Amino acid sequence: MTTESSAPQAIHRLAQAAREASRHLATTPSDLRTGVLLRLAQELDQRAAEILSANAQDVSAALGVIDPSALERLKLDAVKLDAMAKGVRAVADLPDPLHQVLLRRELDAGLELTRVSCPLGVLCVVFESRPDALIQISALALKSGNAVLLKGGSEARHSNAALLAAVQAALRNTGLPEAAVQGLADRAAVAALLQRPDLVDLVIPRGSRELVMSLQAATRIPVLGHADGICHMFLDAAADTAMAVALVRDAKLQYPSACNAVETVLLHREAAARLLPALVADLVPRGVELRGCPSCRDLVPAIAPATDADWDAEYGLPILAVKVVADLDGALAHIRAHGSGHTEAIVTEDPATAAHFLAEVDAAGVFHNASTRFADGFRYGFGAEVGISTGRIHARGPVGLEGLLSYRYLLRGSGQRVEDYAGPAARPFTHRDLIPDA
Amino acid sequence: MTTESSAPQAIHRLAQAAREASRHLATTPSDLRTGVLLRLAQELDQRAAEILSANAQDVSAALGVIDPSALERLKLDAVKLDAMAKGVRAVADLPDPLHQVLLRRELDAGLELTRVSCPLGVLCVVFESRPDALIQISALALKSGNAVLLKGGSEARHSNAALLAAVQAALRNTGLPEAAVQGLADRAAVAALLQRPDLVDLVIPRGSRELVMSLQAATRIPVLGHADGICHMFLDAAADTAMAVALVRDAKLQYPSACNAVETVLLHREAAARLLPALVADLVPRGVELRGCPSCRDLVPAIAPATDADWDAEYGLPILAVKVVADLDGALAHIRAHGSGHTEAIVTEDPATAAHFLAEVDAAGVFHNASTRFADGFRYGFGAEVGISTGRIHARGPVGLEGLLSYRYLLRGSGQRVEDYAGPAARPFTHRDLIPDA
Repeated sequence: MTTESSAPQAIHRLAQAAREASRHLATTPSDLRTGVLLRLAQELDQRAAEILSANAQDVSAALGVIDPSALERLKLDAVKLDAMAKGVRAVADLPDPLHQVLLRRELDAGLELTRVSCPLGVLCVVFESRPDALIQISALALKSGNAVLLKGGSEARHSNAALLAAVQAALRNTGLPEAAVQGLADRAAVAALLQRPDLVDLVIPRGSRELVMSLQAATRIPVLGHADGICHMFLDAAADTAMAVALVRDAKLQYPSACNAVETVLLHREAAARLLPALVADLVPRGVELRGCPSCRDLVPAIAPATDADWDAEYGLPILAVKVVADLDGALAHIRAHGSGHTEAIVTEDPATAAHFLAEVDAAGVFHNASTRFADGFRYGFGAEVGISTGRIHARGPVGLEGLLSYRYLLRGSGQRVEDYAGPAARPFTHRDLIPDA
Repeated sequence: MTTESSAPQAIHRLAQAAREASRHLATTPSDLRTGVLLRLAQELDQRAAEILSANAQDVSAALGVIDPSALERLKLDAVKLDAMAKGVRAVADLPDPLHQVLLRRELDAGLELTRVSCPLGVLCVVFESRPDALIQISALALKSGNAVLLKGGSEARHSNAALLAAVQAALRNTGLPEAAVQGLADRAAVAALLQRPDLVDLVIPRGSRELVMSLQAATRIPVLGHADGICHMFLDAAADTAMAVALVRDAKLQYPSACNAVETVLLHREAAARLLPALVADLVPRGVELRGCPSCRDLVPAIAPATDADWDAEYGLPILAVKVVADLDGALAHIRAHGSGHTEAIVTEDPATAAHFLAEVDAAGVFHNASTRFADGFRYGFGAEVGISTGRIHARGPVGLEGLLSYRYLLRGSGQRVEDYAGPAARPFTHRDLIPDA
């Protein structure tokens, strides 16, 4: 069901079919959108052999061609497949995000306004080697009534085709339009869609910084995501040593390639002599390379010198930049200059300093005495994660299903005309909220 | 305080100053943001003579150069100025939109997540001849803690300079940075900013369809607004004749140039013979020109023939296109093909048909037995209107102050690390909402 051609007309037809499918999904009752996901989980179980054999084809072709970590992400096995099916069932179990009444207000007697959640429409998702992204994003899209056009990495071609076949079988067997989830043949198809804000409502990249930036540069369609995750931890003068060390270790080492891993630790001048040796003693034996400013190297000469590039680096590796700053304002200035608006943390026992940091830092996540690694949709309790956004428009931070939603205003009247509410003898509106705090 | 130069460096400095001012505003207490607006209202009162004389300069230069309706919008008088000051006081009186706790959730004992509203940052507002837009948008921006860069029409140059001086005096006298509201000298300055998504967070056009479309085409920065307002009313077979006529009259004539005025009326085939003559009898004596499909002209030969272009026209004038459709599905298909996603209405006494229409139509506003003219932030009870958006991302429909807001996630912990919540012996999250229904 992947397009055979990326000619503009073919892309247009495909996107048009997606739009029609999205209209259908928008008014589909909750149990059908849940049903298609339960069926998909079943298809994944039943088609395990087929999917793993398609994946083996991709893996053998990629051996020696892509790097070992990408190969690891590409490779599927029974355990990963089982986790995929479980993930789909978990999305099925989430409350229906559609048709939620977000506001209900009497404008006047017999004139009632409601604001009701609805799908965005058509999503275009571009992902790199990890084929499980196809299943995850399809599940999120269907649950929220959106159609989705998917472009996976070419090295995962066979795996993606087998997974897409499972999704389309689930759609078919539930009586939903197969056009709701379609594959895009190549980059030319993506490029053609990026020029059409009328056909696609949201672009979601799942992959490298380069992928995100290239999509952002190529389109006026909103792109949900983040290019950089340059997260800082500021260890204040009043930081507890043991807590500071444990939090930096977790934020750096628990999963170094995550976007919410810490890249730079800022040390308050008054505490650097106490904290830096403790960090070094804990992290260096665990294989972390530290790169420091001159003040850091004065304190611990074994630390490698940091260059300017280190303050803007997202290592994705067990490397940590360390810098001494004069005070909280110095930390705030450094974060303003080098942060990517993802997640920033302070470690301090002083509540006033913490409050100041939380008030001042402009980032999707601002943390006090907690690891930056908590910045995650599942840990926040969203049940599912569409991605993490560093944009300020629409959704920010870890984005759950609500990032795939818009809303409509429904007004139910009994013949009201605006002219009766205008002019000197205007009838007043009541503007009475019928659901408090909506 | 308007820029003298539109050289890229000058624009960059100006936007940088706006960014710094926006950071300042973001943490400014509510009473200062209210205070600056009360002061602005006072400045408008005190500077009335000065502002009106500047405006008189613009008006005399524009006489015979711009069309009469544009001249009307350009012209200020004591009444309009008073209304501007009242509008500013009304925005001052709105509840503080910042620092609102939108979600509060315990992730685990001693680990609490909150989602808190914050400003978007820096807005770029481009408006046409109506100089009161400068005051209205400045008030909305300051109330919500945003900085704003303003470009008005060159025909209102002196008026805008006088109004901007009032805003900057209010900022100065309240101890807030004047860079929070700055003027842009020319289109080149706007063009330079449109290329910098890093400097501007949201573009807001206030003016013609052409202005909106040209800004949308020129930038990757989100643009809040709508190009078209092609609104339909479907008069169902079960429509009450008197109500249908009264609603069409209101939606067409109460303010024909509004974006939420009706442009096309769709008539159910079974009711056309009853409804169309009634519409003609009511509207034609009021100066409305009707343009109809062949079936309409069979019923009332005096109606002018509609061409294909009429189904996509936003007249802004007392002209109404009328078309007979086979049934509800015919109306839905016409709206899908020709609607602009702004506001669509049905008139019917049949609740099932109304429910179907409300469920199916994908538009910012979908109305039953009410005039399309109700699609408006003030009528919806938002207290202020930033604009009306037909986009699905961020804000849709009439947009109040919330359209100028984003949010941050604050996480307050006591040393929690993610590694304790991972792996086989993972500590579970509690995910307990502390504010119900947030």
